[in-house]
Amino acid sequence: MISHNVLDQLKAIVGEKNVFADTISVSSYSYDATMLSGTAMATVFPVTTEQTVHLVKYLDSVNIPLVPRGAGTNLSGGTIPMENSVVVNFSRMTKILEIDTENFVAVVEPGLVNFDFQVELEKYGFYYPPDPASYKATTLGGNLGECSGGPRCFKYGVTRDYVLGLEVVLPDGQIIQTGGRNFRSEPGFDLTRILVGSEGTLGFITKIFLRILPKPAAKKTMLAIYNEVEDASQTVADIVAAGIVPTTLEMMDNILINTAEDATGAGLPRDAGALLIIEIDGHEVDMDAQVEIIAEICKKARVREFKIARTVAEVDQLWLARRVVIGSVARRRPSYSLQDVTVPRSMFPSAVKEIVKVRKDYNLDIGILAHAGDGNFHPLVLFDQRNKDEVERVHAVEKHICTMALALGGTVSGEHGIGLLKKHFIEMEFSATAMESFKKIKSAFDPNHRFNPGKIM
Amino acid sequence: MISHNVLDQLKAIVGEKNVFADTISVSSYSYDATMLSGTAMATVFPVTTEQTVHLVKYLDSVNIPLVPRGAGTNLSGGTIPMENSVVVNFSRMTKILEIDTENFVAVVEPGLVNFDFQVELEKYGFYYPPDPASYKATTLGGNLGECSGGPRCFKYGVTRDYVLGLEVVLPDGQIIQTGGRNFRSEPGFDLTRILVGSEGTLGFITKIFLRILPKPAAKKTMLAIYNEVEDASQTVADIVAAGIVPTTLEMMDNILINTAEDATGAGLPRDAGALLIIEIDGHEVDMDAQVEIIAEICKKARVREFKIARTVAEVDQLWLARRVVIGSVARRRPSYSLQDVTVPRSMFPSAVKEIVKVRKDYNLDIGILAHAGDGNFHPLVLFDQRNKDEVERVHAVEKHICTMALALGGTVSGEHGIGLLKKHFIEMEFSATAMESFKKIKSAFDPNHRFNPGKIM
Repeated sequence: MISHNVLDQLKAIVGEKNVFADTISVSSYSYDATMLSGTAMATVFPVTTEQTVHLVKYLDSVNIPLVPRGAGTNLSGGTIPMENSVVVNFSRMTKILEIDTENFVAVVEPGLVNFDFQVELEKYGFYYPPDPASYKATTLGGNLGECSGGPRCFKYGVTRDYVLGLEVVLPDGQIIQTGGRNFRSEPGFDLTRILVGSEGTLGFITKIFLRILPKPAAKKTMLAIYNEVEDASQTVADIVAAGIVPTTLEMMDNILINTAEDATGAGLPRDAGALLIIEIDGHEVDMDAQVEIIAEICKKARVREFKIARTVAEVDQLWLARRVVIGSVARRRPSYSLQDVTVPRSMFPSAVKEIVKVRKDYNLDIGILAHAGDGNFHPLVLFDQRNKDEVERVHAVEKHICTMALALGGTVSGEHGIGLLKKHFIEMEFSATAMESFKKIKSAFDPNHRFNPGKIM
Repeated sequence: MISHNVLDQLKAIVGEKNVFADTISVSSYSYDATMLSGTAMATVFPVTTEQTVHLVKYLDSVNIPLVPRGAGTNLSGGTIPMENSVVVNFSRMTKILEIDTENFVAVVEPGLVNFDFQVELEKYGFYYPPDPASYKATTLGGNLGECSGGPRCFKYGVTRDYVLGLEVVLPDGQIIQTGGRNFRSEPGFDLTRILVGSEGTLGFITKIFLRILPKPAAKKTMLAIYNEVEDASQTVADIVAAGIVPTTLEMMDNILINTAEDATGAGLPRDAGALLIIEIDGHEVDMDAQVEIIAEICKKARVREFKIARTVAEVDQLWLARRVVIGSVARRRPSYSLQDVTVPRSMFPSAVKEIVKVRKDYNLDIGILAHAGDGNFHPLVLFDQRNKDEVERVHAVEKHICTMALALGGTVSGEHGIGLLKKHFIEMEFSATAMESFKKIKSAFDPNHRFNPGKIM
């Protein structure tokens, strides 16, 4: 429960309409895209950096922790509030402050939705490569906190590669500016990149300098359909080994093809073992030659059907199916646990084989979804949270999958952070000494553990 | 002076042939590519991670600071030893541990010379994009310490963008492994990138996981010759604004054209105001169209002559001239001070104009050399260190150039770190609060200031 005094102070800082402490509002911001939830005492929506500074200083003075939040689309419990904390929701700081096409730079506020940013950039003939599947809802501040990827990141890299500079409010209420409009290295220690992916545990980002790119002149979207998921994963390894770098190499297995088809009616082949969405971009003159090479590789891996999207509508249908797939599994089972591990590209076929085996061994419904070119994949474990025995098997599978990724030379997280869900798994990946380094960095920035406490470690 | 006891211990750790404490040897490793020098008590060459750990632990126990060193080609005094320190020279750890063409990853030791690495990769049809001008001498560990760039970095990004993981010996002698073979984000705080560019002040790198790329199918090298340096800089801005991303956009002015020509006889036009070396790479089919657009842009900016290198020998001659240019100025004046600032790309013509003006205002010989596409440039201030009045003007110009870069929205360092030379300038760029964050990070990793003390801040 929040005291009247604290509530009044919060209202004085951000204005009455930007503070919510009633049960319904507080619980609306107490869960995220995982199955976890918590209880905060209030949710506040700062709309300026100055308000953020005041919030941080005031809440520090009364010993109340702060949990930053964008759209809550993260998949590792990174925005789950602990008891007696205040959720600082940046989703009302949505301004595009500048689009500088001469220098390929945009300056934005953290609450701006990724999709809204893309729409605006499009007017200038530009785009921002990182495109999480949730991009219609997810905020850029959230993307930075998690170092998000997306389908396009195979060719273009992840959020980290596009952040040029930041304005950050530190846990002591001081503001720092890191980086800026320059493309070379940042002098001194790389403050920008220590903050990207830190899940709001080191500082709150209030302004972002992003690198933007001119839209490529041409692109081609292909759909490859397979009877066996192993053939699809072999195609991925072969394309990468051939030195071809598509923008996108997305994989969905039979389970997800069916749930996505239920949700969209996009015309996906319900009886297929797996499909790949392959997209390339670049100069018009290159397109046909690359399509030919890719078609040849697919054929060698026993592709059942290979189609090139001929119209914008066809491309959009394919992407719609891909983008709704996570939500669509609710039609099949009431709960899901989305895994997010990465393996070296060459290990991708082995990892897929293992998931197929795990599905049988644990008697669980597991859909396979993957940013396959990167070796980043998302087994979607479907279950019913009310079934205790099943829940236990889900947890066992989560651990099994992380262990497998590490054994293949991979990592326990690809693009959805550590948050609460993976705190134990990160300790399997890093030595005690490395974990100690994390703790030292945390203490250097936030000695009183005021910012998003209990996350990452 | 080093005590017999310490000397014996060092020899016991790395072997007799890997320790030098005589005056000549010590002074050989007491200076770098700047005009600065210091005095260490010994230079040791560890050849394994284990030896590095033992060195760190032993020197900590006797309270002796350690200064890491590769080839000493840095340009900011980052490897200058302070009195009573030991130089830890990694240039005998030169192994290529693995070239993994399936995953586009190489694993190397820090003392490996950039050029030797490129030669080996070439055998596999691969290359490593960051290519400092000093790449024939410079070590990969040194490149990481400085987050080096190079001519190719306009298109391909700097060292930071190619480091996937590290093995690091921390100041307390513990080893950590960061990242690895995966291309997505690194879970937890980004330890890899906080170490890249930290100039050996946070940890010593003993193993490096690097991203490598297949060699592009085609490239074209062009030479554009101008009467006026301003026309060359305008060309750079116009190419970038046209959305063309050459691999390389290098600029040299009349002074440097002449010193480079003295050194190489490459056939550079001695009477030209400036030249641009422009290189593009990609698919064969794209080359001609791009050359045409670039030729057109050069023409609009009053290019005097536009040539395409027709043979490998012609390309090599051009690059030789570019690569020797810094050393070549010794023929003109006995001393030089190489500046390294970056401005937003669109500000590049303004910055060049200002340098031309500064040359007159301070009555100094200043050559202009630039990785122009990035806005990263290297005014080379030529002087005689014995002339006190001139030296004072040089220092005034150094400050003037940094102030100008910051006023144009740039940064005081592009790719050669902070070291000793830029400690005062970094304080002009960052707020006291940001500098405080640097100090907190340093203290978190190295509370006793044992690793390369006195550098960066």
